[in-house]
Amino acid sequence: MALLDENRLFPTDPSMRDLARLLFQSISQLPIVSPHGHTDPRWFAEDRNFTNPTDLFVTPDHYVFRMLHSQGVALSALGVPRADGGATEQDKRKIWRLFAENFYLFRGTPSRLWIDHAFQEVFGVTARLSAETADLIYDQIADCLKQDTFRPRALFKRFNIEAISTTESAIDDLRWHKMIRASGWDGKVVTSYRPDAVVDPEFEGFTNNVQVMGEMTGEDTTTWVGYLAAHRKRRAFFKAFGATSSDHGHLSARTEDLPQAEAAALFSKALQSKCSPDEADRFRGHMLTEMARMSIDDGLVLQIHPGSFRNHSADITAMFGRDKGCDIPMRTDYVTALRPLLNAVGGRSDLTIIVFTLDETSYSRELAPLAGVYPALKLGPPWWFHDSYEGMLRFREMATETAGFYNTVGFNDDTRAFCSIPARHDVARRVDCSFLATLVATGRLHEDEAFEVAQDLAYRLAKQAYRL
Amino acid sequence: MALLDENRLFPTDPSMRDLARLLFQSISQLPIVSPHGHTDPRWFAEDRNFTNPTDLFVTPDHYVFRMLHSQGVALSALGVPRADGGATEQDKRKIWRLFAENFYLFRGTPSRLWIDHAFQEVFGVTARLSAETADLIYDQIADCLKQDTFRPRALFKRFNIEAISTTESAIDDLRWHKMIRASGWDGKVVTSYRPDAVVDPEFEGFTNNVQVMGEMTGEDTTTWVGYLAAHRKRRAFFKAFGATSSDHGHLSARTEDLPQAEAAALFSKALQSKCSPDEADRFRGHMLTEMARMSIDDGLVLQIHPGSFRNHSADITAMFGRDKGCDIPMRTDYVTALRPLLNAVGGRSDLTIIVFTLDETSYSRELAPLAGVYPALKLGPPWWFHDSYEGMLRFREMATETAGFYNTVGFNDDTRAFCSIPARHDVARRVDCSFLATLVATGRLHEDEAFEVAQDLAYRLAKQAYRL
Amino acid sequence: MALLDENRLFPTDPSMRDLARLLFQSISQLPIVSPHGHTDPRWFAEDRNFTNPTDLFVTPDHYVFRMLHSQGVALSALGVPRADGGATEQDKRKIWRLFAENFYLFRGTPSRLWIDHAFQEVFGVTARLSAETADLIYDQIADCLKQDTFRPRALFKRFNIEAISTTESAIDDLRWHKMIRASGWDGKVVTSYRPDAVVDPEFEGFTNNVQVMGEMTGEDTTTWVGYLAAHRKRRAFFKAFGATSSDHGHLSARTEDLPQAEAAALFSKALQSKCSPDEADRFRGHMLTEMARMSIDDGLVLQIHPGSFRNHSADITAMFGRDKGCDIPMRTDYVTALRPLLNAVGGRSDLTIIVFTLDETSYSRELAPLAGVYPALKLGPPWWFHDSYEGMLRFREMATETAGFYNTVGFNDDTRAFCSIPARHDVARRVDCSFLATLVATGRLHEDEAFEVAQDLAYRLAKQAYRL
Repeated sequence: MALLDENRLFPTDPSMRDLARLLFQSISQLPIVSPHGHTDPRWFAEDRNFTNPTDLFVTPDHYVFRMLHSQGVALSALGVPRADGGATEQDKRKIWRLFAENFYLFRGTPSRLWIDHAFQEVFGVTARLSAETADLIYDQIADCLKQDTFRPRALFKRFNIEAISTTESAIDDLRWHKMIRASGWDGKVVTSYRPDAVVDPEFEGFTNNVQVMGEMTGEDTTTWVGYLAAHRKRRAFFKAFGATSSDHGHLSARTEDLPQAEAAALFSKALQSKCSPDEADRFRGHMLTEMARMSIDDGLVLQIHPGSFRNHSADITAMFGRDKGCDIPMRTDYVTALRPLLNAVGGRSDLTIIVFTLDETSYSRELAPLAGVYPALKLGPPWWFHDSYEGMLRFREMATETAGFYNTVGFNDDTRAFCSIPARHDVARRVDCSFLATLVATGRLHEDEAFEVAQDLAYRLAKQAYRL
Repeated sequence: MALLDENRLFPTDPSMRDLARLLFQSISQLPIVSPHGHTDPRWFAEDRNFTNPTDLFVTPDHYVFRMLHSQGVALSALGVPRADGGATEQDKRKIWRLFAENFYLFRGTPSRLWIDHAFQEVFGVTARLSAETADLIYDQIADCLKQDTFRPRALFKRFNIEAISTTESAIDDLRWHKMIRASGWDGKVVTSYRPDAVVDPEFEGFTNNVQVMGEMTGEDTTTWVGYLAAHRKRRAFFKAFGATSSDHGHLSARTEDLPQAEAAALFSKALQSKCSPDEADRFRGHMLTEMARMSIDDGLVLQIHPGSFRNHSADITAMFGRDKGCDIPMRTDYVTALRPLLNAVGGRSDLTIIVFTLDETSYSRELAPLAGVYPALKLGPPWWFHDSYEGMLRFREMATETAGFYNTVGFNDDTRAFCSIPARHDVARRVDCSFLATLVATGRLHEDEAFEVAQDLAYRLAKQAYRL
Repeated sequence: MALLDENRLFPTDPSMRDLARLLFQSISQLPIVSPHGHTDPRWFAEDRNFTNPTDLFVTPDHYVFRMLHSQGVALSALGVPRADGGATEQDKRKIWRLFAENFYLFRGTPSRLWIDHAFQEVFGVTARLSAETADLIYDQIADCLKQDTFRPRALFKRFNIEAISTTESAIDDLRWHKMIRASGWDGKVVTSYRPDAVVDPEFEGFTNNVQVMGEMTGEDTTTWVGYLAAHRKRRAFFKAFGATSSDHGHLSARTEDLPQAEAAALFSKALQSKCSPDEADRFRGHMLTEMARMSIDDGLVLQIHPGSFRNHSADITAMFGRDKGCDIPMRTDYVTALRPLLNAVGGRSDLTIIVFTLDETSYSRELAPLAGVYPALKLGPPWWFHDSYEGMLRFREMATETAGFYNTVGFNDDTRAFCSIPARHDVARRVDCSFLATLVATGRLHEDEAFEVAQDLAYRLAKQAYRL
């Protein structure tokens, strides 16, 4: 028995299915370009064996533990580390069994597809996970993980990754990236410049973070001019470790293009923790425009990831800390929010701004119309909860007619779950081939064009947009 | 000729259709669990014959008369009773003919499916309703209605209803439920606790209603403590008549978790009709949290039905009163609105909060992510205008990938149209089987799992979530 | 090779495809009724040859140049005239080649379908546009355009247009419409009353425009009463040139029903340019209700087109002026916004208000429920960016179940691109036939009814709603 249907995610109509399969066959062996994600560079630096199935599949995966939690499983029973120092389950096999018993909860979800894919394609598992098969599968994966061929660099090659980007804070020392470079390994692992900690006045430790950035760069970051100079130096440092992009996660998509004196004054207030919430928001918004101006100079692609209400559950945040599956998408406006940025730099063809959304209603109403006219603006792939079969299909159906394919940037997996990377790209490629086959079958695209677009979506657009 | 296609609502692709049919066959005979609705308990108490086809199908059904009205048919011509005492058409056959002439207006709507289903399956009608067939069908249904086998209790059994919930005001005396109990009839008809009249300071007669609640319970409802105690006693009284749930219809999904002193002060203002609109809203929002706390103690499931702009047409409301088809869905926020409630009690596994929406954009953006992490929160089925083929499909497509199946609660018909109950459950079961067949055919679910989930969606989840 | 697949836009399932094709065959030869659009009446008045392919297909089509611009092609390189007097490319063939090289950008967009349709059906082109075929196709179209059979009136007949409406400003002298009438030509070209310039206090030159309207009508438009009388006279003048509708493009759907004294006071402030933004908005909103009242008297159908953020790019607007592809849809509320208008006149069966939206989320949530109850309100077809295969399908899927078919008004092309008119109606008819075939195949409509509805959607509803 196979966990995976080899025709999965293809249209069911026989003629479309055949074409989708042919399209997929023409691209399925293309290397993976992963221009945005959250894998740990330490894995590739140290190249140590992953320790056990639970720490690989359960404990760090917020898609997994949030679903289990929603049905009453305590996060501590899953070994999720506690921020308040409380005890959590340490028996990896016990956690795995709990996961296995509840695996039916993932029916119909992308996690199910990703996990089945990793089980079968990476570890050769053919049984479906359940209470009955829990130990068998645990042992099979655990055995694999002990082998050299399952160490991070080996998997990187086996996954056919041409390039992958991690994401580091602007004040990270990039030690693991240095170690990768020093090692002489030829895997292309690059970083991305994520300055939230030094551009968001409401970020924990903002003032100190800005001071650290000053120390790292030798700039006087107590002044607006020195602060901007420090950003430029850190960006250059990140570029030295392969960075081709910056990344920005704000609550809204608000941008501003303030006069320099006003920006400087806000910065000064921010350093003194005297910004009102609205002032903090204006400062963040203005910094996107400053970052875009730096991007024109240094070529980094600007990514904006707005619209997530972070750490919605006060209890979980208090007990387990940030990023524990409690981030909830919000309604997000782009039309008025992005206008200052777009009016400042949106007409530039030498700049790339990639915008993501968690609010699918904006695809056809706001984002496709904006990306379909501003040269600098491109649409990122379906993000987070929408990185799924239905989510991808909705994206193509709602964005393509107005933005076309060439104002999108291919796929990125945005994941910290290393073994899910081939699965996620497999899903994206299949969905895109299905969509293209549907276009051909309904007379909206010629077949030869579909083959070309399939290559673009699976490989070329990501390479090109992210300059990888 | 049959009105109904026996393969209706199944996928058209032959292989998927076959699987959908098999899935449906495996569940189509399951009893109906109807945990939320608005049938009249008097029917089952008195068990009198329904009087005529018009009063059964036309005059009380807001789906029907709103559509006719939208095309210029006066509500008075349909016999809808006037609140202002004006005359309305009393000739039942004449109204029926008007309905029949305009029946083509329902093409493509769920009402058409429900009515055809009731005609064929309940009354054996095989002709399509039109001006030509109006009298024939009227007579056929009228003849049936005279027979004992078409009285409410007989239909209840014939519809294979295992349990049905009505909805009564917190200050209802539940006389019909008492009469049902006293009769010894074994049909399971339970009530649900709907306290809008005593928790909404803007509800007509609020202060008096609260006083009545005091008299009913022997509590001093002029005090906050007495008011809460009265709720507890009324809830217990409703539980004695089978209630397993409470139900709350607010304009927004706003919740609050106020300090008791502040809540008490608001309550005091409310009793004096001195609340500002925002204070009234805060009080309503806070009462949801109080109700949830009581639910932890007494086990009633909490249902929230927000987002309907009631009585949009001033003319219709003045002439015909409330609930005359003029309620219009509004954009509804859940992320910030539900947070106080969820932070107070959302982490409880011993509590069930079921949230409904009329704003479909919230399925994938807000509700599935919330239900996919908070143990107490579950998603109600597509509601009202969305209780339809396309509406149900959108719900499954948008909610399942993030919330899975097990954070949903099966179907409920939410209807006062008794004869449409089998039709509505038939539609829901068919759509779910179609969705499951699609998942299998596209490699997203194994076939054996689909059969299990089909049982869950058609029967088990509703029983379990509503503790029926 | 044909550019067009003869089964385009039909379902792919063989049985549904066959039915869709039969439905389409039954309506494909029906005349085109085009009740809302922006063709230039001068074409039909003068009946001169169109000059060259570039001026027909590229330079005036904002769908085309916005997409090219989004990929870095300067509008000036496309010959788009500059508002600031700057130079633009004048070499028509060079512009055409630029268009041809970038034609792949339109893959998956409705523009691609429309252009291919016009190429093949109007000009007999069978090669796909590309750098290689650019000159060949340019020459072929250019040759056609020199012939008498390709002049506007000949194409009008060939396109089988029964009636077409242009749109003119309330203070337009309708000279071209006069010239058409005077010519004795029997093509039915009517105008529509668009009073934005004289009802929007923020419109450039508002005060002067109102004065001009006074001069045109002999009314004292410095007074509220004279101003309303002038509207009535202009509407009558437009009716004399066939107008059956008025059209209103506001930023929001806000309506008001103010006491006359308050409206008069606002009008007075507006004439003095003293309205605050909110007052200007209230005045616009109130004028919709005034227009509706005039419609009850003179029978003009009232069209509302809200929700477009106009001229989003300050640079493009400064350099090229208004309407240069930089209009971006916004989130739009209808429930509270339309209430004053609907409470004033929504219950009238002798009035038709047609509302359009760029916010697809309102289809199922707000617009279908509103149109499904108010006699005066009907839903316009999918508008602008949503005038496409996926857009039309979403409209039918989201609006039909609540509003039915008979609260919609058929298709209108809303275009200034004359050669795209047959293509756009072809798309709409195919999509509707596909939707109907799907309803039949899934047991939601009987086959004989589908044939009747197909006629309604393709022809009858537009004629009836627009009284053409």
